[in-house]
Amino acid sequence: MVDDRALLRDIADLVAAEATDDDCAVLLLNGSFLVATTDMLHQSTDFPPGMTDFQAGWMAAAASLSDIAAMGARPWGLLIAVGLDLPHRLRPVLEGAVACGKSVECPIIGGDIDSHQELTIVTTGIGSVEKEYLVRRRGSQPGDLICVTSILGRAQAALEGYIQYRRFLFEPRPRVREGQQIGRAGATSMMDLSDGLALSLHDLLRVNNAGYTIESRRLPIISDIPEHKAQELALYGGGDYELLFTIPPDRVTELTIDHHIIGTVIQDHTVLLDGVPLEARGYRHTWQVTND
Amino acid sequence: MVDDRALLRDIADLVAAEATDDDCAVLLLNGSFLVATTDMLHQSTDFPPGMTDFQAGWMAAAASLSDIAAMGARPWGLLIAVGLDLPHRLRPVLEGAVACGKSVECPIIGGDIDSHQELTIVTTGIGSVEKEYLVRRRGSQPGDLICVTSILGRAQAALEGYIQYRRFLFEPRPRVREGQQIGRAGATSMMDLSDGLALSLHDLLRVNNAGYTIESRRLPIISDIPEHKAQELALYGGGDYELLFTIPPDRVTELTIDHHIIGTVIQDHTVLLDGVPLEARGYRHTWQVTND
Repeated sequence: MVDDRALLRDIADLVAAEATDDDCAVLLLNGSFLVATTDMLHQSTDFPPGMTDFQAGWMAAAASLSDIAAMGARPWGLLIAVGLDLPHRLRPVLEGAVACGKSVECPIIGGDIDSHQELTIVTTGIGSVEKEYLVRRRGSQPGDLICVTSILGRAQAALEGYIQYRRFLFEPRPRVREGQQIGRAGATSMMDLSDGLALSLHDLLRVNNAGYTIESRRLPIISDIPEHKAQELALYGGGDYELLFTIPPDRVTELTIDHHIIGTVIQDHTVLLDGVPLEARGYRHTWQVTND
Repeated sequence: MVDDRALLRDIADLVAAEATDDDCAVLLLNGSFLVATTDMLHQSTDFPPGMTDFQAGWMAAAASLSDIAAMGARPWGLLIAVGLDLPHRLRPVLEGAVACGKSVECPIIGGDIDSHQELTIVTTGIGSVEKEYLVRRRGSQPGDLICVTSILGRAQAALEGYIQYRRFLFEPRPRVREGQQIGRAGATSMMDLSDGLALSLHDLLRVNNAGYTIESRRLPIISDIPEHKAQELALYGGGDYELLFTIPPDRVTELTIDHHIIGTVIQDHTVLLDGVPLEARGYRHTWQVTND
């Protein structure tokens, strides 16, 4: 496995100073922000055993759509490049990507195909958002509430054998509608949780002049497995396509979407769980450059 | 090798009726056209022996930038996803992509990395063009001149051992400046020549209610190899990142860029070389959906 974060530090000079700041690249175009993101997935490390080709296509589309959701943006279109070991896999992969796109009203607008040793899917999502509603990772203010959009740890639970959660792993719902409402409500920072809560809070920490304190009793954990295990999954499990965001207390009441308040933004530059430093542990990462 | 064109026909219902019409997907955004394209390349089939990692990155960037050039558009940014067999290859690959982007003033705005069995590079290019200057594959009018931007067959010549042409294969120049001037001059149709001239003329034929007649004596062929061979390379060789376009005779005079008139658009729905049907032969293809 490539150590993504070390590699990204190594090439940061080539792309830009803010290279890992957001889920999407941001470009100013005719008064709106255009957002764009790319995600590469392949069979041996990204598609869990038992996943169908339809679900692989769905998951690949969801990865990019979730990044767009995390900016508060509306997706405009997805491009998909598919490396195929067997030609007949193209159709179900595309059907899955099309279905995921349709679930958030985003068409597949183009792509490329290639022969490959193992199934490889690269999706690129393009979206846009009005200037005032763009939400970045940078922006948390002490006093803001820390929130997540739904139950945490379900994808990782499925990976670890709790098959009742397989659909959260295999057909994750990108929180596109939720992301836009969160942006319009006045969230100050946001990102998706595909790397897990602990690592994501540390990602926010890296780009904010603030800290994050969360409480274990407030975490929306899954309820039908041992509580200690459910909490471990919620903190460190990857693959959830929920959103993590910060928002002033007087704005959180505007939200009609499912959300859970799990803590507060503080002045101290640290991440705390029940007052104790929280380890930066999780997996996978992408890099993006902002350029606006 | 996947039979791209057969596969693309097979999945055309999933993406859109005009799925293979243009080099880029086209979206209307705030009164301008946004164009986007994605290209997947990998070691064993796309990177010729002797190519450095820098050149692999350059070529991957050039593939997407050339597609943007072929719409008459200005590139805004490139995203690059790199699948790595060896982590240390990331830096030279990115240096090559950054250098190619810089050559046409296009920044790398984001990307993703993954471990992989063989080096795989997927680039996505995003650009924009004023509504009136967008050039599509569809639009050729009988009486238009058929033109290309420079000498043909150099990349294929390098592949076949004429090492004096290696830089055209290994570090192809995307014709971004040229594409924009051609669009502003009033070209009626355009595409890039990465699949070779013969196949590209047949691609134009497929989407136009017109035909194409070219003359062998007018082809800009390379001059230091046997003429018969040079002509074969110009007609059927792939990998050239030149542009093929049609333009009314009274507009061609506006062009100050290097260009060669090779024939005329006709009413008959056919592709002719010296009056004889020209075989549809070449290689590689991508698909895109228009949505404007």
